[in-house]
Parts: sequence; structure tokens; C-alpha cells
Amino acid sequence: MKAEIIAVGTELLLGQIVNSNAQYLSEELASLGIDVYFQTVVGDNMNRLSQAIKAAAERADLLILTGGLGPTQDDLTKEAVAGVLGKSLHIDRMAMDNVDRFFKDRGAPMTENNRRQALSIDGATPLPNSTGLAVGNAIAENGKFYILLPGPPKEMKPMFEDEAKPWILQQVLTHETPLYSKMLKFAGIGESALETKLLDLIKEQADPTIAPYAKEGEVTIRISTKADTESEALDKLDKLTEVIASRLPDHLYASEDVPIEKTIVDLMTEQGLTLSAAESCTGGMLMETVTTIPGSATVFIGGIVCYSNEMKEKLLNVPHALLEGEDAPGAVSAETAKVLAEQVRMIVDTDFGLAITGVAGPGYSERKPVGLVYIAISRRGGDTEVIELNLKGNRDTIRLRSTKTIMYHLWKKIKNKN
Amino acid sequence: MKAEIIAVGTELLLGQIVNSNAQYLSEELASLGIDVYFQTVVGDNMNRLSQAIKAAAERADLLILTGGLGPTQDDLTKEAVAGVLGKSLHIDRMAMDNVDRFFKDRGAPMTENNRRQALSIDGATPLPNSTGLAVGNAIAENGKFYILLPGPPKEMKPMFEDEAKPWILQQVLTHETPLYSKMLKFAGIGESALETKLLDLIKEQADPTIAPYAKEGEVTIRISTKADTESEALDKLDKLTEVIASRLPDHLYASEDVPIEKTIVDLMTEQGLTLSAAESCTGGMLMETVTTIPGSATVFIGGIVCYSNEMKEKLLNVPHALLEGEDAPGAVSAETAKVLAEQVRMIVDTDFGLAITGVAGPGYSERKPVGLVYIAISRRGGDTEVIELNLKGNRDTIRLRSTKTIMYHLWKKIKNKN
Repeated sequence: MKAEIIAVGTELLLGQIVNSNAQYLSEELASLGIDVYFQTVVGDNMNRLSQAIKAAAERADLLILTGGLGPTQDDLTKEAVAGVLGKSLHIDRMAMDNVDRFFKDRGAPMTENNRRQALSIDGATPLPNSTGLAVGNAIAENGKFYILLPGPPKEMKPMFEDEAKPWILQQVLTHETPLYSKMLKFAGIGESALETKLLDLIKEQADPTIAPYAKEGEVTIRISTKADTESEALDKLDKLTEVIASRLPDHLYASEDVPIEKTIVDLMTEQGLTLSAAESCTGGMLMETVTTIPGSATVFIGGIVCYSNEMKEKLLNVPHALLEGEDAPGAVSAETAKVLAEQVRMIVDTDFGLAITGVAGPGYSERKPVGLVYIAISRRGGDTEVIELNLKGNRDTIRLRSTKTIMYHLWKKIKNKN
Repeated sequence: MKAEIIAVGTELLLGQIVNSNAQYLSEELASLGIDVYFQTVVGDNMNRLSQAIKAAAERADLLILTGGLGPTQDDLTKEAVAGVLGKSLHIDRMAMDNVDRFFKDRGAPMTENNRRQALSIDGATPLPNSTGLAVGNAIAENGKFYILLPGPPKEMKPMFEDEAKPWILQQVLTHETPLYSKMLKFAGIGESALETKLLDLIKEQADPTIAPYAKEGEVTIRISTKADTESEALDKLDKLTEVIASRLPDHLYASEDVPIEKTIVDLMTEQGLTLSAAESCTGGMLMETVTTIPGSATVFIGGIVCYSNEMKEKLLNVPHALLEGEDAPGAVSAETAKVLAEQVRMIVDTDFGLAITGVAGPGYSERKPVGLVYIAISRRGGDTEVIELNLKGNRDTIRLRSTKTIMYHLWKKIKNKN
């Protein structure tokens, strides 16, 4: 099964937005065992759009088009597909009701052009839009499959997940054994080190397959298997997960696609633990990251960003002698990191206190190079662990890696209950 | 002048990475007045890659290919272009020296496959790679122009900027008057409101042209003009900038592509002002954002994330009576926001103290709906301004808009020196 993704929209060709839809759909299709051989981007132009559809229909079995379903004269995708297939368009009743209701609820007049959002190709399955107005379409014709989705990701993703994916499983992949996948997420290990640990499995194991998956700042692998039933598939996937977990017990933090801060908040909630933080060079990134998770309020209580030395003294009781003076260790030191973590834990009165202090650059002093960062984790009734990091990269990278690294060590402590 | 961008790489077709190169190049080509009609993504496969190159050469004048210049057998772009043009490849001397030096410096043996990175198409201009090993190529053949760039953005962008762009200006756009552009950045105003204010200019003005540019959470317009000399162009662009500034004096914060936090840090540095913050629902996002800017340490001194009510009392002296009790305004209130801003300003001892308290959701209480946020700005020796926001969207959106909105109001105050 070969697929091609066609993204329609002049804003893509002007570089105003990045084609994240193509990435999302490619990832989803890969997880269904469908190969994508081409992605195409074309503007809001009937000739070129029709040309792109015809070319794709010659080389692929499944075409997924995104964008161009809106109300304006520039939105041409349904007309173009209908034209290539020699079909007409009609107003879909349910979609039209949806449009009418939208304007009625807002007490706004529905302008005539909005009827276009309810258009459907004759013979196509309408795909309801739960987060917008434009109805999607799915149609099989001459042994080829066409799926039309809206452009805005917040409409496209739910429509793919709830409508298009089931249609693909039922109409497109009918004669194929379905593919089941699971994402395994790792922290505290680089991609090549992970591959080395699993090299024999990756090379020798044919079922389930193991594919590394590079995402920004994260190491992920996808394991996939074909099976007639979901329980049979899950059984195989769970067994492999156990093997992988036994090789990387201190790195595999989740067997679903979640960030490590989600795992941390869940584990701490379960164990009734609380958290605070003192941040210098990361300027609040650690606290911001943890609090992206809904429900983090029961775990994360508060913290302090102490950018200046004065604030380290005043708000976090770091002794002046530690910070200033000829032989003082200075703000970027193991000693200061330890005090910051212990003090913030005591001040905010939490089970764990975290601290990050370092040189994110580009400015630096001769004694402390860019990339030198100390992280510390203080535990109520326990020791304070301090780790020195020597990070490479620019300011953004150093701040991000500092944050990721302390979250990794916190996760390890909580998981091992030490 | 029509261009097509071809991104080469199976990792794109698997959805492992997003095609940010196509966005970057499209934006750059638009700023040169070159139209992009198609973007194509194709895998590391000689047949399909050659097919994509031939199709593009039929419909465009300028082809830009990214990716597939590396050392492995999967890297086929130079062979494919050479094949389509009926040319051979040779080792470029300077590129090979660069490869040799790289391995010598690291004391590592150079494996034979790395010679591939120094390959150049006969008759092509080699484009040096300042941040990597693979040499780029630019070649004109049969009235068409081909530019080959590496895939990693950190190699592709400098090579485009330093090598490919000058080649385009000298070799491709020789007979065209060059296009000059300027980005104008706005805050505190939505895209449609901005367009309304400038509608007559956008519609009637032919030179310079005005194009809205949607970027995540920001409103930007690009003004462009063709001129024989840069000074002539800048003159026209500056005059239009003045007209736009006079219509939107409280919204135009920069006439270059920088985030508002950069403008804030620059203005505060100039005026010798300092900043602190107390954050509740944003959990550190405001401080994290300001400290992304190099040099922010002289402006931003420190702050407190007070997620729990207890921390609002303990660390920021919010009276208990304000927070708890039948008729208390509560943590999410104008009263609490005001105290937070004033207290953090006094505790950290800065010229400005900012505060954000609100309901980011998805959890909420009956009295306070999701999206209700209070922001406060306290100025040393001045009043404290409190603004109520009623924001729509999910947790991430509400946190981001709260942060953007308070930065907008802070910028206005600093700019107007009030």
C-alpha cells in the first residue's frame, strides 16, 4: 500500500507556515504500515492542484489531501478532486446543519460562501468535523482511495483520528493484517547508545519490528507487529517491551508517547510527593515544563528564579562567602547548587527540591566556560545529589538539556523510591 | 521566476522530522521575489528522486534540493542531478581538504565513504559548507538553475545565506531588479484588526507591497520593494514604515524579525530598568521567555513561582483574607494580582514587578471559569495596573496568551516611559 500526501495552500509555498500536517500524517500512516513515497505541497490554483492530484494518483494507491476545504474562492480541493474523478458536488445535509447552527449560536448572519464548507463529492463518505465547519470526504474510485481533510491542524488531527483512520482500516486495509504499534520513551541516554544496547534485537528481530524515532530532544522507539486481533498484538508488544525494559531499566520511562514530566507528575501524585525548584540559568524553564501537565498543581508547589547573586543570597540564603570573593566557589558551583536545592525544599516545604545553576552563554567568565551547569536534587530526610554537566550547544540547547537532565535524575529517584 | 523545492530524505516520509527546510527556503525565495509553485518530498531512492527532479525541471526555472549529500550509500542527490543532466562527478579539492582536516583534527581515521561528501557535479560551482562536511553545488544547464544544499538545517541555512543566495542574485536574477524586504512586528492586536487598520494601504499600494505574515502567536507584515540600489529601497521602506507606525503607534514594536521579549530587554537595558515576576498559572513561562534573550541578566533579576495559595502567602505576603474565606476575592482576582506584582517588585527590589494569576484549566472551580486570568504590572514609585483577561483555548494557549499579553503591556509602559 503506497500513499501520497498533498498539502494545499499558498501560505505553505510562501513559507508562512511549516507543513506539520505532512509530518503528522506520515507518522500515522507509517504506524499503519502504509508507505509514503511522496509528499507534495501545491498552492490554491486549480490547474496546478489538478496536475498534482493526477500525478499522485498515477504513483500511489491512497491520496490524502489537506487544506482547501474552507469557505473562500481560494478553497478548491473538493472541486479539484471531483473534477479529476469526473464527479459532481452536493451540499451535505448534516454538514450544512452544522454550519447553520454555528452562525445561529453566535447570532451572526451566515454569509453565502459558508455553504461551500458543507460541499461533498457525489459518492463520497462525508467525514464530520468536530472542531470546525468544513466537512471532510473519503472516496474510493478506480481502485484508488482519496481522503480530503481540512488544513488547520486542530481540525485535521481529530478528523484523521476519529474518521479517516477507521475508514482506512475498514475500506483501504481490508485485505491486510492490521499493524499495531507502541511507542517506548527513553531518557538519560542518547540515540546511538540506545541503538547499541538493542542492536541485536533491531537487526535480528523481524516481529515485532523495532524502529528508532528521533524527536526533538527525546529518544523514542516504535515497536510494531501485524496480528489478527489486538490482544494477540498487545501480547507480542508487551513481551518485547519487557525484554527492552530489562536491558534499559533506568532509561525506559514510558510505553506510550508522553513527555517525562507527565510520568514524573503521575508518579509523584501516586506517591503523594511534592516538588519545588530554584532556577538560575534556566530562568524558570524547569517549572514551566512541569506545570504544562494538567494536575501538576498537587505536585508542584512553587519555586524561585534567582538570576542574580543577590537574589541567591536574599531569597535562598546562599552564604555570601560561597558566591563572592577570590577563592569562593561562585554561583556556578556544586556548593551553590546544593544550597539552592536544600533551601528551596525547606522554604517551600516539599519532599523534593531541585536546583539548576550554570552558564548558558553566550556571555561567560574566564573561570566558568559556557555549558558548565550544576544540577542538584535534595530529598526530605535524605541526601542531596549534585551533578556537574558539561553541555555543548547554544543558549537554548544548554537550557533545554539542563532541564531534561534534572528531570531524568528526578524520575530515576522517584521510580526507585530512593 | 518560478522555483520548486525538493527535500530528499526517507526520515521526512516517515514523519520523523518536519520539513522546516522547505518553510525556510520558501520564505527566503519569497523575499527575493521568486515564486514557489511546488514543494516536493521524496525518499532516498534513485528512481523516484530522478523522477521528481525531471518533473520539477519541466515546471520550474530554479530547483533547490535539500538533503542527500552525506557520506552513506543512501545519499544520492548529487548522482541523481548529475544523471538527469548527463554529467559526471569529481572530487572537489577544497571540500576534500575540509573532510581530511576534520578527521585529522579529531585523530580519527577517515573512512572511504566520507569522500562522497566532497563530490561535485562537473561544471557546477561548489558551495563551501562552513558548519559541516558535505559540499553544496550550484549549476545552470539548459536555461534551468539547480542548487543542492545539505539536509541538516544548521548546515543548510548558512550555506543558503552565504553561498546560494549570492549565487541566485548574481546568476539567476541577473536581469531582474532585486527585491528588498523589511519585517514589521506587532503586539497587542489580532491579524484581522491589523489588516482592517491597513486595508487601504494593502489594497491600493502597489510599491512597496504589504503582505501579512502569520507566525505562531505573532502578527507580522512584510513590506517589499524592487529597487536598483539598497539605499533607494530602504528609503521607500522606511517611509512606509513611518506611515504604518503612525497608524499603530502602540502596536508596532520592531521593524526587524525579533520577538517582543528582545525589544523589552533592549529598551530596559537602555533605560537602566530592572524586572521581577510572580507567576501562578503560567508556572515560570514569563521568566523563561524573558531569559531566553542573551544579556537579559542585567534586566531580569529574579522571581517567584507561587503555584499554591500557601506560597502566595508565605513567599509573597498575600493576606490570608484575600485568598481564603466565603467572600474572599481568591487567588484568581485583581486584588491578588496587584499584591503579587507589588510584593515581588519590593522583595526582589526592581523597577517593575509583573504578576500573572489565572485558571489555565482543564480543572476549574465553579466561581472561576477556565481562561480567566489577571495580569498586573507594578512600577517603582508609580501605580499598579491590573488587567482582567478572558482567554479562549486549551491550557497551553491560555498560558502562552497570558505571557504574551503581559509582555505587550510592559513594552507599552517602557516605550511610553510611564
